[in-house]
Amino acid sequence: MADSAIATPHPADNAEHVLSARVDKAALIEKLTAELPAETVLHAHEDLTPFECDGLAAYRQVPMIAILPDSIEQVQTALRICHANDVPVVARGAGTGLSGGALPLDNGVLLSLAKFKKIVDIDPQNRRATVQPGVRNLAISEAVDHLGLYYAPDPSSQIACSIGGNVAENSGGVHCLKYGLTTHNILQIEIVTIEGERLTIGSHALDTPGYDLLALMTGSEGLLGVIVEVVVKLLPKPELARVAMVAFDDVRKAGNAVAAIIQAGIVPAGLEMLDSPAIIATEEFVHAGYPTDAAAILLCEVDGTEAEVEEHIADVREVMEREGAVDIRISRDAAERALFWAGRKAAFPAMGRISPDYYCMDGTIPRKALADVLIGISELSEKYGQCVANVFHAGDGNLHPLILYDANKEGELEATEAFGGAICELCLEHGGTITGEHGVGMEKIDQMCVQFPEPELIQFHAVKAAFDAKSLLNPGKAVPTLHRCAEFGAMHVHNGDLPFPDLERL
Amino acid sequence: MADSAIATPHPADNAEHVLSARVDKAALIEKLTAELPAETVLHAHEDLTPFECDGLAAYRQVPMIAILPDSIEQVQTALRICHANDVPVVARGAGTGLSGGALPLDNGVLLSLAKFKKIVDIDPQNRRATVQPGVRNLAISEAVDHLGLYYAPDPSSQIACSIGGNVAENSGGVHCLKYGLTTHNILQIEIVTIEGERLTIGSHALDTPGYDLLALMTGSEGLLGVIVEVVVKLLPKPELARVAMVAFDDVRKAGNAVAAIIQAGIVPAGLEMLDSPAIIATEEFVHAGYPTDAAAILLCEVDGTEAEVEEHIADVREVMEREGAVDIRISRDAAERALFWAGRKAAFPAMGRISPDYYCMDGTIPRKALADVLIGISELSEKYGQCVANVFHAGDGNLHPLILYDANKEGELEATEAFGGAICELCLEHGGTITGEHGVGMEKIDQMCVQFPEPELIQFHAVKAAFDAKSLLNPGKAVPTLHRCAEFGAMHVHNGDLPFPDLERL
Repeated sequence: MADSAIATPHPADNAEHVLSARVDKAALIEKLTAELPAETVLHAHEDLTPFECDGLAAYRQVPMIAILPDSIEQVQTALRICHANDVPVVARGAGTGLSGGALPLDNGVLLSLAKFKKIVDIDPQNRRATVQPGVRNLAISEAVDHLGLYYAPDPSSQIACSIGGNVAENSGGVHCLKYGLTTHNILQIEIVTIEGERLTIGSHALDTPGYDLLALMTGSEGLLGVIVEVVVKLLPKPELARVAMVAFDDVRKAGNAVAAIIQAGIVPAGLEMLDSPAIIATEEFVHAGYPTDAAAILLCEVDGTEAEVEEHIADVREVMEREGAVDIRISRDAAERALFWAGRKAAFPAMGRISPDYYCMDGTIPRKALADVLIGISELSEKYGQCVANVFHAGDGNLHPLILYDANKEGELEATEAFGGAICELCLEHGGTITGEHGVGMEKIDQMCVQFPEPELIQFHAVKAAFDAKSLLNPGKAVPTLHRCAEFGAMHVHNGDLPFPDLERL
Repeated sequence: MADSAIATPHPADNAEHVLSARVDKAALIEKLTAELPAETVLHAHEDLTPFECDGLAAYRQVPMIAILPDSIEQVQTALRICHANDVPVVARGAGTGLSGGALPLDNGVLLSLAKFKKIVDIDPQNRRATVQPGVRNLAISEAVDHLGLYYAPDPSSQIACSIGGNVAENSGGVHCLKYGLTTHNILQIEIVTIEGERLTIGSHALDTPGYDLLALMTGSEGLLGVIVEVVVKLLPKPELARVAMVAFDDVRKAGNAVAAIIQAGIVPAGLEMLDSPAIIATEEFVHAGYPTDAAAILLCEVDGTEAEVEEHIADVREVMEREGAVDIRISRDAAERALFWAGRKAAFPAMGRISPDYYCMDGTIPRKALADVLIGISELSEKYGQCVANVFHAGDGNLHPLILYDANKEGELEATEAFGGAICELCLEHGGTITGEHGVGMEKIDQMCVQFPEPELIQFHAVKAAFDAKSLLNPGKAVPTLHRCAEFGAMHVHNGDLPFPDLERL
């Protein structure tokens, strides 16, 4: 931590050496297959292409080798061999991540947890379940449904994404406003370190003495260890849930209504916003009954007992009317509630129908800045000449602007990335962060240099070194090297302003 | 992490060298007063005695020097000088901690944050407040009361304890069952590292990219850095709260009722238990209307809107009746609610009236083990021949057995400590942890050797080294050195059983 000079290589820049190191593929295969079943070690090109990208498909790279262990002991063996041979390792769950966190390395091993699909234990009395990391998010709730329980965090990809990846990314979802992120809904994990050591982190009890390594591991994007088992908390299913679909003729009014709802002391189970482009595309696709002439709609769900829901729905109606809503519809039954949500959940695929490609951003801002930031994004959209649709977790201030583009048109991807970068910095200017729930991965690595000053980055690297001194786990992701930030800064610094000449202060 | 041999000194044992190092007091005073105002550096014995203990008064030690800075810059200067001179530092908030976390060192500096008493900013729209670490817990809620807001975590000492100490210990309280611990109620902190560097950790937004250092710092008991500013979340005050006082003629029934309430999907704002000795002592002191012939009472609070409270109170009544309650009284108004709680809040001082001394334990167990552990404690009480009263956060499974003793009687303190240790191990046997919210400090340091295997302890030390390589911050607390665990184990291991010959498995 003491040395803040970045002219000479810093220990915090280990990842760069790892990324450029040469590895003898044949020798490594021999070492791996000597200790692991041959069928778990894949190295032919055609076997490796399924792993070439995750949900951020704009980045692709075939790994040198893929390993598919089916026991914790095999994970330990694989990591021990990689560590001994200085081979970088990228762990992969379901591959649904949106920031490229599971992008392989051409000189590295891709460690897939796909075979870890077992629900190990369900304990309704203590409301917890022990599951392997490859278990799908939704499969947990399905497995405990008959007990009247569910697992709360519900990323849009919950039908496909796996719990190990949820922990690695600290995933959220529509209902995390009331029920918290992944970090608030897990009790204990088993991890294997890069040295092959198995550690139990957290406990079955409320709080655990010692440093909170459970929270530290959660959202660490595969850089500190490989998750091989997860104990999740289960919640009782609410007796009733109703959703209000509220239309506004002005984005600013909708943004202000979000802040007003929260300020009124209502804690909705979910509070989502769609702007006009998102409403139109979604309605054409799903026919959820959204008013296509609205500038924005809010979906505000309230859950609990029947009495509680009725009272809160009345409060929601009152606040929305006061904030200038032009139309308020309350779901009359479970079917209508599902229909209202169907639009929101299909919003991303709906965009895919009207644009060849889209790029999903993930900035988080304080709620009171919502209106200003939405207007700022719209101004940036005009400036960059690219369309943007907004569909997001408004109650959390977690934006998901979707920039529409065509990757086949020369320069459009680059322009989109620049526009996306400008949105990130706009969030930072309003006291926000560059990512809410999708992680930094490859995608936001440069923006990390903007969000964090050097002392904080050095502290991140010191923590990394406490788990993985050689920087072999997922190098090049999540936390930028100081060298990368220095280069990035050198390219962009301009008149001492934010290092983004393209961004005018709004 | 690789080296797990403990025959030779391990880097993880740095703290032992620091604790035994000699420091030139006069030279250090000269260096400190050269850069800090003379009145902030205390070194006369009479000025130092106020710092000789915290809430765990059985342990006392006057520090070599005490420093009372009144600005972050002065904290940076003090820590920089201590770091350069290899002087250990113990930070202290209000000194109300119950595990000896702020116990000074005779060769070290006591750094008091007592002058950091300012509420820096209140932001009702985003429901947060920025406060200095010396601000009292209750003072935050008082400052925002006119806005209809409050700060949720409410340790029993909330009138005196300060927010910096709450963060360092990850404090809970009666209402943390519904509203979470300190770690769930803060957004951002400013810390100063042992090297004097100032870091901003967390952000004003929902989630922050990079490793979750905010959760890591929370509950780290002053071993990773000194907290100099805290941004807390504020919650809207609930419209109504009512408390049910429920009596049982059998401790086992009361324990089972706790599990049943949670399993029924009710999330009480607080769910506390008092057993017979606690009821009798408290009732004599406060006259809260507790039934003195009950084997145990539960206090179950429900809050929310009026409709919500009525419905949940009816649910609570139904479950309690089914579980065999012999008496159920619901608070009729705010005055009666306050009276019911007054007993609980005065339970500790009430014990002070019937016993010269008491020793408060803090184990946490899964809720379904409550009845078994309470009966186990009662059996241990007979075995050790010492009285114990239980008053605790039942809904969280967070026990606070109070062992009654007389420190002036030869051997009673030692017997009490042995009894307390046996209670800790009983909690561990039932899948619990050795501390819920009071921290490890000095008090539980040996039990940490029982809870954590060596690989986990080594990982803790690696994380510590990432912040404080010289082990100068609060050495000897919270995480035991491997050497200490080895010695402790060597003294206690017996037939390969748990290393506590006094504890029979229950």
